[in-house]
Amino acid sequence: MAKAPWITYRPELKVLDCTVRDGGLINNHMFEDGFVRAVYEACVEAGIDYMEIGYKNSKKLFGKDHFGAWRHCDEDDVRRIVGDNPTPLKLSAMADAGKSDWRTEIRPKSESVLDVIRVAFYVHQVPEAVDMIKDAADKGYEVTANLMAVSVAQDKEIDQALEVLAETPASTLVVVDSFGALYAEQIEILVHKYLEYGRATGKEVGIHAHNNQQLAFANTIEAIIHGANRLDASMAGLGRGAGNCPMELLLGFLRNPKFKLRPIFRVLQEQMVPLSRSVEWGPFPQYNLTGQYNQHPRDAMAARADERLRDDFVAFYDKLISDV
Amino acid sequence: MAKAPWITYRPELKVLDCTVRDGGLINNHMFEDGFVRAVYEACVEAGIDYMEIGYKNSKKLFGKDHFGAWRHCDEDDVRRIVGDNPTPLKLSAMADAGKSDWRTEIRPKSESVLDVIRVAFYVHQVPEAVDMIKDAADKGYEVTANLMAVSVAQDKEIDQALEVLAETPASTLVVVDSFGALYAEQIEILVHKYLEYGRATGKEVGIHAHNNQQLAFANTIEAIIHGANRLDASMAGLGRGAGNCPMELLLGFLRNPKFKLRPIFRVLQEQMVPLSRSVEWGPFPQYNLTGQYNQHPRDAMAARADERLRDDFVAFYDKLISDV
Repeated sequence: MAKAPWITYRPELKVLDCTVRDGGLINNHMFEDGFVRAVYEACVEAGIDYMEIGYKNSKKLFGKDHFGAWRHCDEDDVRRIVGDNPTPLKLSAMADAGKSDWRTEIRPKSESVLDVIRVAFYVHQVPEAVDMIKDAADKGYEVTANLMAVSVAQDKEIDQALEVLAETPASTLVVVDSFGALYAEQIEILVHKYLEYGRATGKEVGIHAHNNQQLAFANTIEAIIHGANRLDASMAGLGRGAGNCPMELLLGFLRNPKFKLRPIFRVLQEQMVPLSRSVEWGPFPQYNLTGQYNQHPRDAMAARADERLRDDFVAFYDKLISDV
Repeated sequence: MAKAPWITYRPELKVLDCTVRDGGLINNHMFEDGFVRAVYEACVEAGIDYMEIGYKNSKKLFGKDHFGAWRHCDEDDVRRIVGDNPTPLKLSAMADAGKSDWRTEIRPKSESVLDVIRVAFYVHQVPEAVDMIKDAADKGYEVTANLMAVSVAQDKEIDQALEVLAETPASTLVVVDSFGALYAEQIEILVHKYLEYGRATGKEVGIHAHNNQQLAFANTIEAIIHGANRLDASMAGLGRGAGNCPMELLLGFLRNPKFKLRPIFRVLQEQMVPLSRSVEWGPFPQYNLTGQYNQHPRDAMAARADERLRDDFVAFYDKLISDV
């Protein structure tokens, strides 16, 4: 073992910014163009490898009247921000199983400025996910497989999902801690498992952490230590509920000199401080609890959104304990 | 190795609450009695092992006109809150080398409701610390040795300090990450080193983490994994600058059924929400940066305290980079 491995770097580590995609879950993706452009420009300047600009979600389920452009990522909307994206930054969109009209809404890569489709699915949606992955790969995209909420899937389910996913054209298998429930030792086990299943077909392993227990950054480091080379983070940790691994912490930890911190702090200052006056995100007490109890954060989000409940942590605790 | 070690617990793990002691560094220990009493009662109800109620600091350096009672922990002040403390909770006070009139201000244990003296010192203060440890032990206290800012001490200095401290009557050697600069791999190395030096004289190892990089909780878990049995935490993470390891996260992780979470969430709700309207603490961007750069948080605290600088993260970054 190297004596101080944390002062060197692995050139193969790649970072994906999910500020707009995951962050949009707190405001129905109603971001101003200026915000999305600021994140895009910061990603380019900071040397980030991928930017996930939104979802490819169904316009029937997520109507244009209630959801912003980044829930659908129509080609014209994306190009309004990035033009032809004449940069090394790759652009990604996420397509959810069960929520996307992927056959029709995802155009061939030759007609799109997007580079990557990340397919997100729960363990019971593996068959559709496999079809989605093949479809996106056939259309010319780089594709990832993001099995969500792995903390509530059974070991045998995960094994079987990985066995199937290993044979797909997805180039990356992402460990997704949707509930922010996992501790370092569990991250270690999962990363090793994903690496093992993906080895024969040459897949990378990624990590997408949530910050319910203030462990998103720590768990991302843990995943790196055990071999994950694809890292999700968002500026100021913007993301659903407790948010994600903060980009400003992750880039400060990675020692690759290609990454620059200053553009990120500019976004924090110019975009996130104003945004934080109208919406909230972060590891508030209710999210601590749903994380500890390995639950979906929806009840916590509902409590935070209700002025009468927001500061009543004990009531939230009591209800959670009695509902378990 | 156990298959899921995180679902069991080590009965020998003990938790120290430093809410009032470390938290007082953000308001010169000007807490209302009601606040201190609420923390005390929550510690008792939650099954916490130790509560550090303040400092034994010099009244010459820290005058009564500018500092609250918990900077000095006079016997009458402590008893006003805890009476004779007829509970299993042990009470601690911290004495700083160079800042305490310990010979005169620390009374014999037989005259005090305090149980523990924690001696805090920098690496250049080891000789005074040794005298302080002996003095407190002679007076009848349980004593700990808290070598501060270990992230800026050299390996040889740490080794020599531990060699000397191992021979003192201190029962615990605490790994103190004052700057919130350490990553998990460094915590692992330090905990092993402290354990090794303390083994012959039967010392426990403790961990006191700061949250500059949102790693206080994660590093505390890491220390536990590697054998630390004395854990510092504070409610809502209250503490200097970025704050400490949040008690509500730590107790949720520890599986010992003697620990109760509900009293902690009550303090968060009834004490911390109101307190947060007049003072701030937490892993703000300036603290992220001083943590990453392994610096004392004083410049970050100054920037956060100045309304014109508070949200100018880029200016803080630029100054930090040019000053390095």
